[in-house]
Amino acid sequence: MPRTELEYPKEPYGTVKRYSPRASYALRTIHTIINTSPILHVSFNDPQSPFPTILPMLGQMGSFSRPSADEGDVLDLYLHGYVSSRLVNISRQPSDASSTSSPSSPPPPSGLPVCIAASHLDGLVLALTPNAHSYNYRSAVLFGHATLVSDPAERLYAMQLITDGVVPGRWEASRVPPNKGELSSTSVLKVRIATGSAKIREGPPGDDRADKEDAKVTGRVWTGVVPVYQVLGEPVAGPYNEVAEVPGYLGEYVRETNAVTKEAAFEAARKVVVKKGGEDE
Amino acid sequence: MPRTELEYPKEPYGTVKRYSPRASYALRTIHTIINTSPILHVSFNDPQSPFPTILPMLGQMGSFSRPSADEGDVLDLYLHGYVSSRLVNISRQPSDASSTSSPSSPPPPSGLPVCIAASHLDGLVLALTPNAHSYNYRSAVLFGHATLVSDPAERLYAMQLITDGVVPGRWEASRVPPNKGELSSTSVLKVRIATGSAKIREGPPGDDRADKEDAKVTGRVWTGVVPVYQVLGEPVAGPYNEVAEVPGYLGEYVRETNAVTKEAAFEAARKVVVKKGGEDE
Repeated sequence: MPRTELEYPKEPYGTVKRYSPRASYALRTIHTIINTSPILHVSFNDPQSPFPTILPMLGQMGSFSRPSADEGDVLDLYLHGYVSSRLVNISRQPSDASSTSSPSSPPPPSGLPVCIAASHLDGLVLALTPNAHSYNYRSAVLFGHATLVSDPAERLYAMQLITDGVVPGRWEASRVPPNKGELSSTSVLKVRIATGSAKIREGPPGDDRADKEDAKVTGRVWTGVVPVYQVLGEPVAGPYNEVAEVPGYLGEYVRETNAVTKEAAFEAARKVVVKKGGEDE
Repeated sequence: MPRTELEYPKEPYGTVKRYSPRASYALRTIHTIINTSPILHVSFNDPQSPFPTILPMLGQMGSFSRPSADEGDVLDLYLHGYVSSRLVNISRQPSDASSTSSPSSPPPPSGLPVCIAASHLDGLVLALTPNAHSYNYRSAVLFGHATLVSDPAERLYAMQLITDGVVPGRWEASRVPPNKGELSSTSVLKVRIATGSAKIREGPPGDDRADKEDAKVTGRVWTGVVPVYQVLGEPVAGPYNEVAEVPGYLGEYVRETNAVTKEAAFEAARKVVVKKGGEDE
């Protein structure tokens, strides 16, 4: 763990332009939001398409060269996707996707330029007037260059990292190691992070004074927060399961995750926020 | 409601390449996934940035010219964002962001090329071996061109659509209409959809036969699905709320949403799936 909180550089393309007091550039904050997000949205440009593309993927931040690094350290993002074949193919090609590079500028870093986003919804913030409505949320975005992991040892490291990101301990509790066919058929992308940012909103609604002082409005419109959280339900055994009891590591993970996420959503709803400006959205 | 189920055209950039039996191009399926997603991830290219950008935004599909259209109809996507100022500024500029257009090709449709993604996680699918692990999910992606809505009446339509998308009936239950300042300060983007697709995975894990027939593996590894669903918690009144009771429309929405989402996650976990191939991921 680093002694001071590391921060990502504030690049023009990566800085939060609106309601910037809610922004954070701390690696720990950003990496935690990414690592607790079961689905990441990965955007890239396919040279064959007039549109950018977004694919939902699984991913975890880690360091193959220093596996003991924690979420506050400089880390790479490892991605494994259900639908990543297109992204994988493009990442294999020599990089020329950076459309802004001119002949005179230095060559861009190798790899496919990607943007990764993760957003947790923590509450519906219901204010007096629609314009002041908002969400409690934690969102993070990372920018970097994706390349295909060719080293089998690094691929194995990433596969375990991502599997244990779904349920901690699941890798060892399942049939491992992967056989040769499984190892060779699995594509893992590694994203070297250029920069990133997070944005967090918590607390009750914040309306304009005019509305808060209008008794006809406050007497009629309920204001507050509906906390929102994700729940892991009671595990449902599959058709060929032969293990009678839900294993301890899984039951514990379900219970602990549910307790933490519910608590966090209610905590965000009740948070007392000292605001600098009157604006809130 | 159209008589037949409308489908989006299968463009090279928009078709699902992997596990295509899970793909759907039905407007109704795609629009429903988008409309039930509290946060949408919107990707676009900022000419100033070497990376694509993703912003989390709120959005709902609708038709200003035919407000009675339902989710199976041709609709536009209206977006309103917490952090949309950059996107809004770029959408204001004349479109030249389509990097693939050559001098000889027809001019691209006006507006900023965007991609919008929504993903619902319905379950953790725990198989015998890490490679066969998966999620139950419903994801949708849309491609289109975004322009700023200038007509005040259309902006008002979109604001109500998006507010009622958060909690049905909330618009009328809050202080409306917005005043002049609120109306003029609100930016709404309209995306004309070029195409889109959805991908849905449901059911129990599906392992290879070799693992399912290995008693040492099946006797040790629990397999099944952990259903995942989002819960709306008991509403928490804000500091200046003066309405004693949680209003009926809100309480009902919380109860009904919770019942439906939990049921759907367990239903997906228990679904009997007839598979064509042995592959499952």
